[in-house]
Amino acid sequence: MNKKAIINQIKAKKSFLCVGLDTDINKIPQHLLKEDDPVFVFNKAIIDATTEYAVAYKPNTAFYEVYGAKGWTSLQKTVDYIKQRYPDIFVIADAKRGDIGNTSANYARAFFETLKADAITVAPYMGIDSVEPFLGFDDKWVILLALTSNKGSKDFQYLNADGREMYKNVLMKSQEWADENKMMYVVGATHPEELGEIRAMLPNHFFLVPGVGAQGGDLQAVARYGLNGHVGLLVNSSRGIIYASNGADFAERAAEEAYKLQKQMEELLKSNNLI
Amino acid sequence: MNKKAIINQIKAKKSFLCVGLDTDINKIPQHLLKEDDPVFVFNKAIIDATTEYAVAYKPNTAFYEVYGAKGWTSLQKTVDYIKQRYPDIFVIADAKRGDIGNTSANYARAFFETLKADAITVAPYMGIDSVEPFLGFDDKWVILLALTSNKGSKDFQYLNADGREMYKNVLMKSQEWADENKMMYVVGATHPEELGEIRAMLPNHFFLVPGVGAQGGDLQAVARYGLNGHVGLLVNSSRGIIYASNGADFAERAAEEAYKLQKQMEELLKSNNLI
Repeated sequence: MNKKAIINQIKAKKSFLCVGLDTDINKIPQHLLKEDDPVFVFNKAIIDATTEYAVAYKPNTAFYEVYGAKGWTSLQKTVDYIKQRYPDIFVIADAKRGDIGNTSANYARAFFETLKADAITVAPYMGIDSVEPFLGFDDKWVILLALTSNKGSKDFQYLNADGREMYKNVLMKSQEWADENKMMYVVGATHPEELGEIRAMLPNHFFLVPGVGAQGGDLQAVARYGLNGHVGLLVNSSRGIIYASNGADFAERAAEEAYKLQKQMEELLKSNNLI
Repeated sequence: MNKKAIINQIKAKKSFLCVGLDTDINKIPQHLLKEDDPVFVFNKAIIDATTEYAVAYKPNTAFYEVYGAKGWTSLQKTVDYIKQRYPDIFVIADAKRGDIGNTSANYARAFFETLKADAITVAPYMGIDSVEPFLGFDDKWVILLALTSNKGSKDFQYLNADGREMYKNVLMKSQEWADENKMMYVVGATHPEELGEIRAMLPNHFFLVPGVGAQGGDLQAVARYGLNGHVGLLVNSSRGIIYASNGADFAERAAEEAYKLQKQMEELLKSNNLI
């Protein structure tokens, strides 16, 4: 999916919401456990209920790998379902991969060809040849970790190297590898002021912003610091939407939470003259 | 598996060889493709042929994920086979994972409980809470990326931050998280002099050293700079062993290559008075 298609979808839905499918069998409604594949049945219900309000889904691979091959089947079925039923939706494999060149080439095939995701999150530590193999696919995206939303982001990402923080080194160095039509960046919602600095450095890129909701990030602040002239943001919420209820009404309640965020996003898009 | 058991096995086999199971269906002997699970059949033959000379196996998850759920089945069967047939062998899931705390907790369960590996490689970029969930399992190990063997290691790992290279910051900071009984480090064979500096910083840790063979690293130099009083090294070779032949003799030829490395390692252990 190219940048224009993503922007078109954002404008059509008046939303830049990404729903994180961090599906944990211990947190989903107990009545689903009698199903052959409860994880997929849950995902399908969440997707059907929220797709009106969301432009992207982001399954996190850890929550599927914990069940081994069975988990990968649930993941594949989830992506297949989105791609068949809602082909305009942007699918992000939140996998945080990265390895030497011939290994990253296999990860790229795993996520872009086998799973058929549109984008994958990639860890930057191993540098150019760990990222480049993901860049050789038409209309597929690398979403590189820059400044993450978690506590541990303080350990290395803020270290000052060559006169600037490590995450800024990642942002600048990776500009040599791909432009805003192939690469996005992860910037946590828990760092709104740094998001402003990053937006000043990279006026044209999309940022994937996790950390709104359960992790404490604030959508208004993210929009204030992060929006650009073509939106430029995908804001993710996982737990706040998918676990809004663990009863029979889980899908309805997820839809309500997604709708609330979509409405806030619509206001933000309007007040910034983006729709 | 604890440190003492690893050292005992090294001394018994006179080897600190790890065989990398980067099994690529395009490179294995064509006669295996008629099997239901060619990847597992290949791995089993390689393991049976080389286990006399090796103390560890290191399947790299990318080479399995590329086949989706089927690949995870091959990976699970491979680890199950090693654990059942050769319980003293150390199994490293070369997965290079790392994510926010609740996600890393799922990766930890995926690799330690579901897959039953003894160790997992972890990427440091996201800091403490991305690593800690892997440390809560008895006799399981984190092998943290420090200085990797690839070209891209130059991009960020050598950046000078707070007066020392980023990889040294990773080494020092992570000392606060776990000691040499729970954590090892990846140090590429392509950086032998830095390996010496790292050994001086961390006299007691084990290092997993990839990059000998196809990537150009030199075993003699690795041993010179990396051995400590209880060996402290696991040296990996993947392609040089498992693809020594793609004919009917692939397992015999793999055994020959593993044997050559084991003999060199035996000499190095003897000349350093370690056996």
